[in-house]
Amino acid sequence: MLTVLEIVGLMAFAASGSLAAVRAELDVFGVVVLGLTTALGGGIIRDVLLGVQPPAALVSWPYLVVGAATALVVFAFHPLVSRLRKAVLVADATGLGLFATAGTATALDLGTPGYTACLIGMTTGIGGGALRDLLLRQIPLVLRREIYALAALLGAVIVVAGHALHWPTGPVTAVAAAVTVLARLLAIWRGWNAPLPRAGSNRLER
Amino acid sequence: MLTVLEIVGLMAFAASGSLAAVRAELDVFGVVVLGLTTALGGGIIRDVLLGVQPPAALVSWPYLVVGAATALVVFAFHPLVSRLRKAVLVADATGLGLFATAGTATALDLGTPGYTACLIGMTTGIGGGALRDLLLRQIPLVLRREIYALAALLGAVIVVAGHALHWPTGPVTAVAAAVTVLARLLAIWRGWNAPLPRAGSNRLER
Amino acid sequence: MLTVLEIVGLMAFAASGSLAAVRAELDVFGVVVLGLTTALGGGIIRDVLLGVQPPAALVSWPYLVVGAATALVVFAFHPLVSRLRKAVLVADATGLGLFATAGTATALDLGTPGYTACLIGMTTGIGGGALRDLLLRQIPLVLRREIYALAALLGAVIVVAGHALHWPTGPVTAVAAAVTVLARLLAIWRGWNAPLPRAGSNRLER
Repeated sequence: MLTVLEIVGLMAFAASGSLAAVRAELDVFGVVVLGLTTALGGGIIRDVLLGVQPPAALVSWPYLVVGAATALVVFAFHPLVSRLRKAVLVADATGLGLFATAGTATALDLGTPGYTACLIGMTTGIGGGALRDLLLRQIPLVLRREIYALAALLGAVIVVAGHALHWPTGPVTAVAAAVTVLARLLAIWRGWNAPLPRAGSNRLER
Repeated sequence: MLTVLEIVGLMAFAASGSLAAVRAELDVFGVVVLGLTTALGGGIIRDVLLGVQPPAALVSWPYLVVGAATALVVFAFHPLVSRLRKAVLVADATGLGLFATAGTATALDLGTPGYTACLIGMTTGIGGGALRDLLLRQIPLVLRREIYALAALLGAVIVVAGHALHWPTGPVTAVAAAVTVLARLLAIWRGWNAPLPRAGSNRLER
Repeated sequence: MLTVLEIVGLMAFAASGSLAAVRAELDVFGVVVLGLTTALGGGIIRDVLLGVQPPAALVSWPYLVVGAATALVVFAFHPLVSRLRKAVLVADATGLGLFATAGTATALDLGTPGYTACLIGMTTGIGGGALRDLLLRQIPLVLRREIYALAALLGAVIVVAGHALHWPTGPVTAVAAAVTVLARLLAIWRGWNAPLPRAGSNRLER
């Protein structure tokens, strides 16, 4: 069964993917396919890395139903949805936090060591959005933006630390997800930017 | 051993990939690599999702030989081949139908439940073409075009239904493939378009 | 433990990825993420194809440390690094040779037949650079350039031949890697070009 956090994460990533598809003027099928790819992609990558085959997202129907329903709602109501400024970014941040931490917890459950669980959790969080951006021919957010992979890694580390200290998984994961989402939103809101390469030679010369 | 349907599917996808490479003015190596990626990509994704490792396409040499030979023929004779209008689209539709249904049958053979087999079959059909388009920096057909993923899903559902009714696999798969190809070609020919997002806010605003 | 050749290959691919990121004007996080993806991507693809889950690159910390440290050095000193003309191409060629041959040796170690080991080794060599180019929205080198996949395949075949003749793995792999790197650099230096499609119909007509 899906946990509540997983459902919210699925809906957030499905919304970010389908909003991005609406903005790229895809038709209703493209919107659903991109919403599903964004929502299910991270978890499928996680399961392939962990050797869980076939991946959970292809075995349990709630994944598909939640993802597709969210995409259709976005398609139907997008003028309302997209009026919310930065809606894609906020949905993406929410999905990032929930998937990075849930992915870490899943990896720990399967007996993966903490170091590996952190990296797989971070990949779970980053994967769906990277697929979304690749399919729309955009340089992925994870490469372009302020604190992104680092926020996911932060949440993953908190989950691993809580696991090492034998704290209860549920609350720790929820807190870790909240920290990731907040870190990411703060980075967007305050425009925290990482240093750019020094000027001079950073021109694309081929 | 490869079945006849698999060989035809391989040739169709290899042709679609190498034609797309010729049109992008790649050299002979690029044409062969893209033809092979398109032909073998869907099956490799299927095997990774099912836990068949190493994937069949990397174990049996006929896959490579059929794919590379088709790409070389396209490279040598492309002025003839590409004169056929929409040649890439027709080859792509044929590969889509054959791979989606063969992928579903393979998944069922391995004991996968019907729901999962449908999704993995659909992914098998879509995967090669999506890789081809990604590598050429185009938004994948599956996101852009009329009935595409839906045609693949239709064929997959027919295979699963036939399996549930204990009908013979070979003929059912052939019929399901034909239905998928026809649905896809009809959608291209009649220009069946899915609804677009309502105007107003579907502009790319960043 | 990592062998010396693997470390050099990691550093070469991490340098090629982070240099490409610097030239695309990504910030320091983007540079590190792209350097790591390029350095670890080929090995992760290899392990997923072979069923080694979780992949070695996510289990042993030296992979991450070597990759990230190289990317940070490139970020800090890139005006020096990028003054070396074709620095990305040379680093990429070095990584290609080391990863294709090490990937082949790893596959043989796991009992994979020679044919499969060649293809998986070639994919290991090609994979990281292809991910780098995809993420930066460029048509991958493997599709665009002179001898590339063929150089990787050449190295892989030498490793398999040495294995069949029971020659010692270490020296054979080193020689095979050197042959691949030399073939690739010669192809760049001498501008060896593969035949292009005949003119006339190779225009992108949609």
